[in-house]
Formats: sequence, structure tokens, C-alpha cells
Amino acid sequence: MKMYTVSQLLSKNQFGEDVEIKGWVRTFRANRFIALNDGSTINNIQCVVDFENTDEVILKRITTGAAIHIKGELIESQGKGQSVEIAVAHLDILGDSDPETFPIQPKKHSFEFLRENAHLRTRTSTFSAVMRLRSTLSFAIHKYFNDNGFYYMHTPIITGSDAEGAGEMFRVSSLDAKNPPLNDEGKVDYKQDFFGKETNLTVSGQLEAETYAMSLGKVYTFGPTFRAENSNTSRHLSEFWMIEPEVAFMDLAGNMDLAEDFMKYVLKYVLDHNREDLEFLEKRLLDEEKTKPQAERSEMSLIEKLNFVIDNNFKRVSYTEAIDILRNSKPNKKKKFNYIIEDWGADLQSEHERFLVEKHFKCPVILFDYPANIKAFYMRLNEDGKTVRAMDILFPGIGEMVGGSQREERLDVLKEKMKALDIPEEELWWYLDLRKYGTAVHSGFGLGFERLVMFATGMTNIRDVIPYPRTPQNAEF
Amino acid sequence: MKMYTVSQLLSKNQFGEDVEIKGWVRTFRANRFIALNDGSTINNIQCVVDFENTDEVILKRITTGAAIHIKGELIESQGKGQSVEIAVAHLDILGDSDPETFPIQPKKHSFEFLRENAHLRTRTSTFSAVMRLRSTLSFAIHKYFNDNGFYYMHTPIITGSDAEGAGEMFRVSSLDAKNPPLNDEGKVDYKQDFFGKETNLTVSGQLEAETYAMSLGKVYTFGPTFRAENSNTSRHLSEFWMIEPEVAFMDLAGNMDLAEDFMKYVLKYVLDHNREDLEFLEKRLLDEEKTKPQAERSEMSLIEKLNFVIDNNFKRVSYTEAIDILRNSKPNKKKKFNYIIEDWGADLQSEHERFLVEKHFKCPVILFDYPANIKAFYMRLNEDGKTVRAMDILFPGIGEMVGGSQREERLDVLKEKMKALDIPEEELWWYLDLRKYGTAVHSGFGLGFERLVMFATGMTNIRDVIPYPRTPQNAEF
Repeated sequence: MKMYTVSQLLSKNQFGEDVEIKGWVRTFRANRFIALNDGSTINNIQCVVDFENTDEVILKRITTGAAIHIKGELIESQGKGQSVEIAVAHLDILGDSDPETFPIQPKKHSFEFLRENAHLRTRTSTFSAVMRLRSTLSFAIHKYFNDNGFYYMHTPIITGSDAEGAGEMFRVSSLDAKNPPLNDEGKVDYKQDFFGKETNLTVSGQLEAETYAMSLGKVYTFGPTFRAENSNTSRHLSEFWMIEPEVAFMDLAGNMDLAEDFMKYVLKYVLDHNREDLEFLEKRLLDEEKTKPQAERSEMSLIEKLNFVIDNNFKRVSYTEAIDILRNSKPNKKKKFNYIIEDWGADLQSEHERFLVEKHFKCPVILFDYPANIKAFYMRLNEDGKTVRAMDILFPGIGEMVGGSQREERLDVLKEKMKALDIPEEELWWYLDLRKYGTAVHSGFGLGFERLVMFATGMTNIRDVIPYPRTPQNAEF
Repeated sequence: MKMYTVSQLLSKNQFGEDVEIKGWVRTFRANRFIALNDGSTINNIQCVVDFENTDEVILKRITTGAAIHIKGELIESQGKGQSVEIAVAHLDILGDSDPETFPIQPKKHSFEFLRENAHLRTRTSTFSAVMRLRSTLSFAIHKYFNDNGFYYMHTPIITGSDAEGAGEMFRVSSLDAKNPPLNDEGKVDYKQDFFGKETNLTVSGQLEAETYAMSLGKVYTFGPTFRAENSNTSRHLSEFWMIEPEVAFMDLAGNMDLAEDFMKYVLKYVLDHNREDLEFLEKRLLDEEKTKPQAERSEMSLIEKLNFVIDNNFKRVSYTEAIDILRNSKPNKKKKFNYIIEDWGADLQSEHERFLVEKHFKCPVILFDYPANIKAFYMRLNEDGKTVRAMDILFPGIGEMVGGSQREERLDVLKEKMKALDIPEEELWWYLDLRKYGTAVHSGFGLGFERLVMFATGMTNIRDVIPYPRTPQNAEF
């Protein structure tokens, strides 16, 4: 007798075969119908128990969450909602699940409750669908880059450099925590620490990725990054995964083309490969939105939103144009924005980004050529001397999805910028070397993976799209 | 005119097309022949300069390491060693490279020197080949698992649990390093730290992976792990990448089958996809070995070794059998081992593992059913009450490549084991929950990615197979 997965059995259309399956009971109805799931698909297979000839003791142990082993005949289903089912000939209980204490009951649980039981939440349809989608998206990302001649590069997690500048960092140490050794100046003597210097968790692999782009041509990272910021919002994690491609000889326009092509590819990939999960999540989102006032509901369903991104060109708008649009917008004139846009040079807030994307253009928007002084030191200064070749890609409902730039490839300009920002050259000698030896135009971007998973799944809290979220005051599991 | 990569041009067999290419100069001979590389392949394309009609100033700037942009006609090569070359019509210097100071000269550099210049070492053939292979291996790993129904899972990097037990951990903190707050007991008050408790960098994602296996069925991790151990050897890193599959309803025999099939697949994949890189590294290794005494040289070339693993069954040997073999072995009887094997229960040292693999069996060996007291708490106790369903896979030249086990699925046995080892149940309440609610046989293994890259590339120092190695006293770049 052959062992199958639920996914394999549900796609069979020949009946009469004796099959075996192992999985967990989702529900058991009428002492007869087991809905069995093994994670291979969002769907359960119905297993029909001949209760008149089954030991009562066994029947009582068929509870939600129990692991069971079933042997039986695959038959055409009599009931609605499925085409095949198993007529159970033999049933073994592998692991019981006490219905009095098992947290995941066959009813609706709040996402807060499920976060507290994150080790069991993938036993629900919602979270198993989200995590399957997360996995498929990951694979799509690797496949896209691999198929397009990029090399995957593992940039370091522990970094001795604090010049990355993307945010607050966590310190990594193995010194005595209570009584660290001090040096002559009375400061903590990091020379005695594990790495012989102060080290932190990386906030970005970009600078290291640039070193590989300038030899291997096209590279990307996909790894964890960290922010020690006390942001307890539904969009921030202290530990999250980031994708950072970096390409030699590519300018900002090429960077936009790459980002757009990439986003479309990976979203198309999940549409093609995880249709059932998406349909489930689409329905879930519709149900959730029904509880909201009409004005707050999304105009498009989940799958419509994905198709909309795939089928439409991203609107490319310069920062300067965007400021004009915002300055003349209704919410600005009527002072509905919390931050009123008055002058060129203002940093855009999420309310402005959302206006542009959701109200004005109604499609993904690529903003580019930002004022130099609100962007990072490594971005390529434009000939106007005041803007840099930066781009942000804004998505409906999510806001900033991608941030990228053409990098400053001119040694003198880069040095001047670092000097102005008090970044010591010794810190980044190797980064400067790239501009000394065979420098060239190059560009790249960063994409927060969890933001992408949120967009693709319709989940609205970032804690619900990563297995074990790390946020201020929370490192459980 | 179309822009190409070196790889694309070298595989063309139609001549006469006007082409464009950008890359870095590897060498410039006789004021005429540029060997140009762009990272897309280990091979350079020869670009022939019409030096009589080229500005002297430009000719002088064609130096090793310079970035250049070439336009010209693709023609059949007159010289040996390549089939195509470019007759240069136009040449632009994008970025100069001062031949007096550029560290990567067209000569043999020591690997130590190149480690100090790790930001430039992928401009050598050896390191570009190694890193391309590393990338291909990564992709092969994702592809294997994806094609076989596994879900990729990102387990947390920052962990509040110190029960993983695989080694010393790095502390992650954002408390004041010099004057951390103390609690009433006079200890560091981690309640005031970022996560409200003491946190460390993970040493393994296994325990979390088990939670997902027990709902999604088949999962794997592929992420960074850390060891704060002062091991300054050619086989240890403080930060390295690990692959950890975990499968529900799979026993130890299935685990062995999976590991063997997986290893063969990924090695076959690089043989099929990175032949030229492998041939280069094979030649490099042969040259290196020529400097060694005959007895220390490998009997097989690099590609022969890979094929040997792919074509042969891994030998499966119980720990008990291995002890018998070792006890009766020549080096044991002649007291050549540093640790003489006398009794059952001895922990095997790398000298013993190497004897078994390299001298006795001469093929990869899977050792299984180890004494319980030398293995981790979560491994499934056998019916004999003294061995556990653990397995280690030993590779020639590398030693332990894979460590895995069937996991203890019985709540009472697991609790007893934790009690004996003083692991508090509160620490791992969620891990114990897996045994309370629908427990089942399950298994998995861990594979150190850099060990695999070493095996596949023939590199002998682990610092040379990861972009920016972290080791005691070293977190440069």
C-alpha cells in the first residue's frame, strides 16, 4: 500500500486504490467524517469512518489536532465540496490531542491569540496558507535571480561597521554583561571582546553586496536584517528578511526596470503556483473587510490587486513632480494632512505616499530623484547638485515596498559626502577601494520581504507573516 | 548595438556582429590583447586593440582592474585558447585602476593576502569560481526542497531560549554596555533590555523547524547560525549558514535516505551547471597538491570525488559496529590514535571518523544509533534504553558533514530527559506542546553549508568559501 500526501490524493481521479495517509485531524463530524490535513495543501481530505465497526475508544480519540494514520480505499465522494474521499479500513491514533486543552479549536481564533500560540498557528488554514505563500515567494525570488544570471551572496550578519546608516543596531558581545572590562579611558574595552572590536547586527548587506557586484557583475542578498528601534507598529519588525540585488554597469533607469520586472515575476509566480491558498486568503480578507466601514474597504480583491500590479506599468514620477501634485492636492489645501507640504525638500510621510498611490495614481508608483539631504550618503548625486538618483517604490496599502538608488561611483564626491556626514574613511576603506580600482556606474535596491508577503497574502499585521516575530518586548519561541 | 555578457559572447558561434561589453581588465598584453572579465563566467573574452590607431593615453590606462566599455566586432579568434574575440572599434575607460597600488596583480597571491583583501578577491579566478559555485549550490538546495514538497521556513535569529544546546552563544543586547541596569538581586536586569529578557544569536533553527514540520509536514531552514567558541581552525566559523530539513512521519531510515538523496542531487547539480568553474578549481587543487608529499595527496581529483559521492551508496554503519572496527584497527592497536578506543560509549574524534571514511570504507559513511549520553536531549531513545536514533554523515577530507536524528516524540520520555539535564520545562513549553497535541514520529538533520561548499570546491580553509568570514578576533568588512 502506498503512502500519499493529501495534495496527491486530491488530484487523483482514479478510484479503487488502497491508499495510506498520515496527518492531523481538523474536524470530526457525526462520528463519521474526518477532515484530515497534512500541510501539503490548504484542503483537507475527507476520511469516512465505518463507525459501527470501529472501537468506541478509538472513535473518542479522533479529536481536533490528533495525529492519525489511515489506510483505506480512495473512492469518489458522495458529499459536496470534494471529489474524492477515503473509505477508512484501518485507523491508528499516532498522537492524541486533548480537546479540553488543545488551543486550536475548530472555531475562529483572534490573530492575537494565535500569535501567543505561534507554534501551533500553522495548524489553521489561514496561517498554513500564509506560510506556504511565504515559502513560494522565497523560491520565486531565488528563481528569478538565478534565471537572470545573478549570484546569491551571503553578506555578514555580525558587522564591525556602524556606517550602514539604516537605523539603530543591536550590539553583539560575549563580554561579561555585568562587569565588562574597561580600557584606560574608562570605556568598555571591546578589544577584549570576541571579535576584538565592537560588533552589531547588520541593518543591510548593501555595502558588501556592492563589492561583489563590482567583480561578479550581478548579485543579490536574501537574509535577515535587524533594527533596534522601539517601533511597536503593525509594519515593523526588529528582525526581518531583506532582498538586495546589486548590479554593475546599471543606472537608475535600469534599476527601476529590474525592480518592476522582479516584482511582477514573483507575484505572477505565486498566482500560478498557490492559487488555492490565495483564493482562501482572498475570501478571508473579504470577510474581514465586511466588518469595516464601506469607505475603508479595498476596492479590489486580493487576487485582483496582484493582477493589477502584474498587468500595469508602475508610474514613474520624480520627487519634484510629486511635491507639485501634493502641494496642489485637496488634503494639502484643506489641511487634512498631518504634515502640510509647503516647500520642495520636505520628507514625504506615509500619508503623502498613500495619497499618491491610492488616490492620485491608483497604481504602484516609483518616485525618483529625491533631495540629497534626506537620503543616504552612498547615493549618486545628480548634475543639479541637489538631488540624488534614489528611488522608492510605493505600493497600495503597504506604502514603501522598495528603496534603491544608483550608487555614487566617484571617489572624490563620495569622500566629500562622507566627510560632511562625519563618516570616517577608515571605517569604509574597502568601500572606497571600489571607487579607486575600476569604478563604474552601479545600482541596486532593497526590498523588505515581509512587506511583500503582506501584500501577497493580504495580511495586515507584519507579525502574522513571519513564523516567530521579534518586536520590542517580544522574543518568545 | 547590443550589450552582452562575456558568457553570452563566448557561446556565440556567429561572427560579424557589432557588440558591446563592459567589464574589468584582467590582463593587457603586448599593448594589444585585453583579457576582459565581467563575472558572468570564469573565462575572459579577448579584446584586440588596434594599438596603432588608439590614443597612447588611453592605452596606458588599460591596466589590470580597470573598468572599461568596449564596442567592436565579434570575430573568430586567430589565437589559441578561445574561439571568439572582439576586434575593438571603440574603447572607453569607465574607471581607472592604478597598477602601482591595485592589490590584485596578475600573479599568484596567497590566500592569506586575499583574505585581507576579501572585498577584491572575487576579481581572481579562484574566488569568483568559488562564489559562483556557492551560489549554484544554494540554488540547488532551494530547488531540491521546493521540487520535493518542502516549505522554506525562516526560523528566528535572535532567540530568547538558551536550551538549543549546540554551543556557546553570542549575547544580543541594546542595554548600556558599560553600566547595565541591575535588578534587586544585583544581576543585569534583562527585563529592561530590548526584548524584555536575555537574548542570544541562534545556534540552530531545529526546534522551531519541528513546530512547522508538525503542521506543514515537510519544511527546511537555510539561514545563518552562530557559535561563540574560540575555535581558530580552518574548519570553524563564528557565523555560518546551515540547512535544516525537518519532516513529520519520517523515521531515522527515511532521514538517511533523504540526506543521501539530497547530497547527491546538489552535487550533481553543480557538476551539471558549473563545469568550467569546477574544472578550474580541480586544476588549482592538483597544483596545490603537487606541493605536498605523495602520501598526503588525494587519490581522486575534485570532479572524481564529486562523481564518487554521486555514484556510490553511502555506507550505513551502527555506532556499535564502528567501535568494533576501530577497536580492532591497526592505528588503535599500534596506539597511533591520540584517543585509543577501548570501550563502547567513547565519543568518536575526528581521527576515528577519518579512519572509517578514508581508510576503512573509502566512501561517505552514515553512522547511527549513538550512545544516548553523548548526544542531544531531543533525540529518540531506542528500545535498548542506551542508544538514540542519531546519525552523522562523514565525508572524506571533511569529516562530519551532516548531523541528524529522529526526534523524541514521547512526552514522558522527553520530560524525563530534560529533567535529567536540568533543562527547565518553562523554557520549552512550546516544544513540549508538540508532544501533547498530535505527536508523531519525525526526523531531520543539519548540514553546515560552508562544509558542503568546501567539499564541492576543494578549498581547504573555511574562511575561503564565505564572502566575509567571522572568526575570533575578526569581523572585518
